Amino acid sequence: QRRSAITRTIIFVLSSEWSFLTVLGFLSAALFLTTEIAVDNILGGRLWILSALPNLSFLRLIVWTLYSLFFSIIARFCVEYISPFAAGSGIPEMKSILSGLKLKGYLSFDNLIAKIVGNVVAYCSDLSIGREGPYIMICGILANVLLKLDIFYRIRSDNSSKFQMLSAACAGGIATVFGSPVGGVLFSIEVTSTYYLIQNLTKSFLCAFCAAFFTSYIGNHGLLTPFVTHFDSKTFSNGKILSFIMLGVVCGVLGAFFVVAQDYVSKMRKKYFWLSKDRYKQVCIISIISSIFTYASFMPLHEGQFYTIRSMFSDTKLTEWERPSVYFNLIYFIIFKFFLTVVSIGLPVPCGLFVPVFVMGSAIGRLWGEVLSDLFPDMLITPGGFAVVGAAAMSAGTTRALSTCVIIFELTGQLVYMFPVLISVIVATAVGNLLSPSVYDKILESKG
Amino acid sequence: QRRSAITRTIIFVLSSEWSFLTVLGFLSAALFLTTEIAVDNILGGRLWILSALPNLSFLRLIVWTLYSLFFSIIARFCVEYISPFAAGSGIPEMKSILSGLKLKGYLSFDNLIAKIVGNVVAYCSDLSIGREGPYIMICGILANVLLKLDIFYRIRSDNSSKFQMLSAACAGGIATVFGSPVGGVLFSIEVTSTYYLIQNLTKSFLCAFCAAFFTSYIGNHGLLTPFVTHFDSKTFSNGKILSFIMLGVVCGVLGAFFVVAQDYVSKMRKKYFWLSKDRYKQVCIISIISSIFTYASFMPLHEGQFYTIRSMFSDTKLTEWERPSVYFNLIYFIIFKFFLTVVSIGLPVPCGLFVPVFVMGSAIGRLWGEVLSDLFPDMLITPGGFAVVGAAAMSAGTTRALSTCVIIFELTGQLVYMFPVLISVIVATAVGNLLSPSVYDKILESKG
Repeated sequence: QRRSAITRTIIFVLSSEWSFLTVLGFLSAALFLTTEIAVDNILGGRLWILSALPNLSFLRLIVWTLYSLFFSIIARFCVEYISPFAAGSGIPEMKSILSGLKLKGYLSFDNLIAKIVGNVVAYCSDLSIGREGPYIMICGILANVLLKLDIFYRIRSDNSSKFQMLSAACAGGIATVFGSPVGGVLFSIEVTSTYYLIQNLTKSFLCAFCAAFFTSYIGNHGLLTPFVTHFDSKTFSNGKILSFIMLGVVCGVLGAFFVVAQDYVSKMRKKYFWLSKDRYKQVCIISIISSIFTYASFMPLHEGQFYTIRSMFSDTKLTEWERPSVYFNLIYFIIFKFFLTVVSIGLPVPCGLFVPVFVMGSAIGRLWGEVLSDLFPDMLITPGGFAVVGAAAMSAGTTRALSTCVIIFELTGQLVYMFPVLISVIVATAVGNLLSPSVYDKILESKG
Repeated sequence: QRRSAITRTIIFVLSSEWSFLTVLGFLSAALFLTTEIAVDNILGGRLWILSALPNLSFLRLIVWTLYSLFFSIIARFCVEYISPFAAGSGIPEMKSILSGLKLKGYLSFDNLIAKIVGNVVAYCSDLSIGREGPYIMICGILANVLLKLDIFYRIRSDNSSKFQMLSAACAGGIATVFGSPVGGVLFSIEVTSTYYLIQNLTKSFLCAFCAAFFTSYIGNHGLLTPFVTHFDSKTFSNGKILSFIMLGVVCGVLGAFFVVAQDYVSKMRKKYFWLSKDRYKQVCIISIISSIFTYASFMPLHEGQFYTIRSMFSDTKLTEWERPSVYFNLIYFIIFKFFLTVVSIGLPVPCGLFVPVFVMGSAIGRLWGEVLSDLFPDMLITPGGFAVVGAAAMSAGTTRALSTCVIIFELTGQLVYMFPVLISVIVATAVGNLLSPSVYDKILESKG
């Protein structure tokens, strides 16, 4: 059959890479907002049940824990019965796929469903995990599924173009979850590439922009700065600069320790048969511990990780953390969070590690800021600013991605702490690199 | 001779890549601040002479023009007698060098002197040129010269390490001039690489950070946001988003037109013998035209390009541009600036093109904002915000570097216009790419 010139032009435009990336960004955003609604409903349901219960702390704790337990079991169920490839973060696997390895099953539709459902329920189950890792993979699978449409035949048949789309999809995934288009592109490049073809950059940017834009536009989030800060613009004294460098060193060391610790846990899991076999038991035990920690602490941890980050970043006093004392609570939180994250991210459920590490970093920074502000009251320290710097440094110390600094600028919507963030991120990355490989490389290595 | 363990450790640390990059960043910052002092003195000298003259407009204009002419001749002199390699921006040559080509003479000490002196005097001579291109090259040569020191023998003898240092030096150069560490790294990657080894990123970041930090620290610039803006945070209506996209299209087309026009001018220069021979005459004629344009316009252009950018970005009315009318002045400025920049950047003196293009873009955006705000008074348009978007879009339309968006965030210290800047930068890059290669690639191509 013959087509008119206009029809052909329209088809040509619609079947182009640009149209593909716009659609992909839109789908990624729509999917993410849908999962957000699911998360809100599941967590809201728990609060509703709790409010209907008699006012007995112990009963409430049990219901809370059982509720989480139920969802953590579903998460494990998704991996066991829908797709075994859905376990873990997915970033190391995406790196392998983008470097040319053919990992069968990872980009399948089954895995898409398992990742989406599994990550939502796991996230709702109080486990100390994040959403960004699975979402990179989800967006990659979305791209792969979308490519099967007839209209994108031109892209599908060109292998190099197909790879570029997958790489752009990673940027889109990160940009959707964080709402940080520029940081998303850079982070995805750092964690999934060894060599990067600069020519791809425009495509990754387009996909990331569309993803972040539609998330913001449909979700009415406005400017997508979930942790908006309002610090004053200021110059930093030598003493402060030194303290930021020290924070960077501490976060670099802790980041490397985190990498080594999670590797040790994953080795233990392989070594001891009862651990490697009883996967449900593992998930259940850790879910129960996490729930108790989350519900029974003095601090309002049950409000979620994002709430904790906002408290840390605030420029007011941590009134909710004062019982029994801010120092005690922060140290208690950091130690528990570290332990729980180390054991959680290796669980056979879809889980990322960025957000828990980020939360931990914000608490470390806040603690450092509170200590300094008590020791040197005339230095006029803003502990919230130290929390921002700590979050960036700890994330960099673990993932070794310098783009965490861009992500944090986009998350807070401020550039006031540009120099401290940069210096501590560079120091943390350097110190971390001296002590261990990045967490993603270590996972890849241990998977062989 | 035998050395103690401590001495050996110290030497090992001092001779490392990290120490090299820190020193390089420091030297780059120190050198830049020195040239800043020179620029200030030369421009201040002109104002001093003018203030000593009797109040006759015509006499003042002649003195102003002669003063500029003198320095433009010195600039040409530097290229002719110190190093012929100092002409032009240096970015295309750095790209060749980083891709493995051995361009003899470009990284020599002679060229360093010619570039530094030549660029300072050319910048002071009212020519419509910038400083970022030559400064990339200057920082590259600094790295090359520094590598000749005995202590850096380890780096020098390892070819791959040497290339990484040169690549990091490019990032340092941009970061020094713009004061934007993150944007500097990204911009340097985009304009000098085809493939980028992600592993280098930490090194480039370190060098860029040190350069920007020391520039800020020694120069007491505070947070290094030369064009700080104070726009309110807001969401953007559909109409505004559409107008930003249109601005992106316009800037993309104009950017491509700029690339083609400068290529045409450079072809004319080669074709006509009298143009290619009489290089002093060319420099003199264009310098005189530029001076008259700068001094005799109704707007305060003699305050320099940075002053113009600040006026464009301001959220108040353009009171200094109202005689005879803001529209007339903006259109007159854009046309003249376009013409002068096209003929200036091909002159055989050390000159970059980013700043003039950036200024042009800010004026285009401001014009667009003023028009919209007159046409649709109830859309509550901030013309200054449009100027920010226009500056980013026009720079992207010409250089095709998406990192202009990061540079503009760091220059203005605000992320409020993140979405508009991103969308117009992507659109401008895409439209530009449809119509022509990037300006640096075009120059490289025409040089063969």
